[in-house]
Amino acid sequence: MPSGTPQPAFVLVRPQMGENIGGAARAMWNFGLDRMRVVAPRDGWPNERAVALASGAGRLLDEAVLCDDLAGALGDCQYVFATTARPRGLTKPVVTPERAMAMAREMIARGEKVAVMFGPERAGLENEDIARANAIVSVPVNPEFASLNLAQCVLLMSYEWGRQSIEAEDEVVELAGSEWASAIEVEKLAEHYEGRLDEAGFFFPPEKAEGMKIVLRNLWSRMRLTRSDVQMLHGIMRQMVRWKDRG
Amino acid sequence: MPSGTPQPAFVLVRPQMGENIGGAARAMWNFGLDRMRVVAPRDGWPNERAVALASGAGRLLDEAVLCDDLAGALGDCQYVFATTARPRGLTKPVVTPERAMAMAREMIARGEKVAVMFGPERAGLENEDIARANAIVSVPVNPEFASLNLAQCVLLMSYEWGRQSIEAEDEVVELAGSEWASAIEVEKLAEHYEGRLDEAGFFFPPEKAEGMKIVLRNLWSRMRLTRSDVQMLHGIMRQMVRWKDRG
Repeated sequence: MPSGTPQPAFVLVRPQMGENIGGAARAMWNFGLDRMRVVAPRDGWPNERAVALASGAGRLLDEAVLCDDLAGALGDCQYVFATTARPRGLTKPVVTPERAMAMAREMIARGEKVAVMFGPERAGLENEDIARANAIVSVPVNPEFASLNLAQCVLLMSYEWGRQSIEAEDEVVELAGSEWASAIEVEKLAEHYEGRLDEAGFFFPPEKAEGMKIVLRNLWSRMRLTRSDVQMLHGIMRQMVRWKDRG
Repeated sequence: MPSGTPQPAFVLVRPQMGENIGGAARAMWNFGLDRMRVVAPRDGWPNERAVALASGAGRLLDEAVLCDDLAGALGDCQYVFATTARPRGLTKPVVTPERAMAMAREMIARGEKVAVMFGPERAGLENEDIARANAIVSVPVNPEFASLNLAQCVLLMSYEWGRQSIEAEDEVVELAGSEWASAIEVEKLAEHYEGRLDEAGFFFPPEKAEGMKIVLRNLWSRMRLTRSDVQMLHGIMRQMVRWKDRG
């Protein structure tokens, strides 16, 4: 059973090598983190190589949540970080690991669910993945030499979480206002808009459609919607369609 | 030639596996550290495996100072840290990596030379080695599970050094390749939506219209739009109206 300690979930997106999955589990458990989610691992699941390399942290793999797609893995989360070597063309807040884990700590203390995504070894996260994140975490490495592998990146984020836990004097900040929408609510909003805008002929020309959809999704995730925002945005789209149908 | 940046020397004491020596070099250079000293490596020097694993950080190995004994490696240093998994019976200050690197920074700024020792993979530093240190650095790992290898330990210390080097630009939100919209652009967007949604009958019942408009405006301002966001949102509304007109 996972520990009861409130903590972020670490989401390995399409990981390739079992070694790295096992290494990531070890890295996490060194700092008391034990909520792993695994999206579409290249070599299937369970992964023997991962189990062998996880040694004493094998429990994390047994208990890892396996998902077919990223939407499923992030569905219950109110805030999602994407780790990338370098920010790539998407308009999105970029924060240090330190800042990210401080933010995560505050949100988790308020009862929100937070995820941190890690991309596959070779290429890292795709823009389509990053579009689902509220913010990008970038480790400030030497611009002349950036060579962190998956397990190392997980290690640094875990260390940051642990480091701040030591000094955390529970200064929980109460946020005035509303409840944040969960990723699944945002996902449904994105689908609603995509569907209707598709019918309306918005995504044109066809070869640009994918890119336009990513930009739109990126907007929804970046702006951190509350539940009432989501309701209003649904309402706007519904009303436009009603107007059309009446006309 | 080593970089001119003032920094601590990282001393690998009797390292065993070439992989770990190469990994340590990579870890250091990720955070701009390039002063390595190597004491009595088990497999001699140079170490081919280490060179192979160091990839782009091979220069650190070429320039590493090779020493027969620890005394020689630490001779010119005014302050020495020993990294250990757990403090072992020696009366010696024990500090976190964070505190250690803050101390190192101060001492180095005063022109003093600082070293950080890392023990061999299997057993770690001997008490005899630790006795040469001014303080112990202990990474605050999970008491139930401590499994950091040599390269990971070097990585965490390097990260701490790097983390403290960058300015606290925490709150700064960097934008990947876009400009923020000006207030007047946001205002025009709000007017566009209000006008069309009014025609569409969205603001209903009338006594709630004012409140709904404020919520909508608040959304636009809260999410901090870029110019391209504004263009897209205009485009969405225009397309919905075109759809209606076609229908």
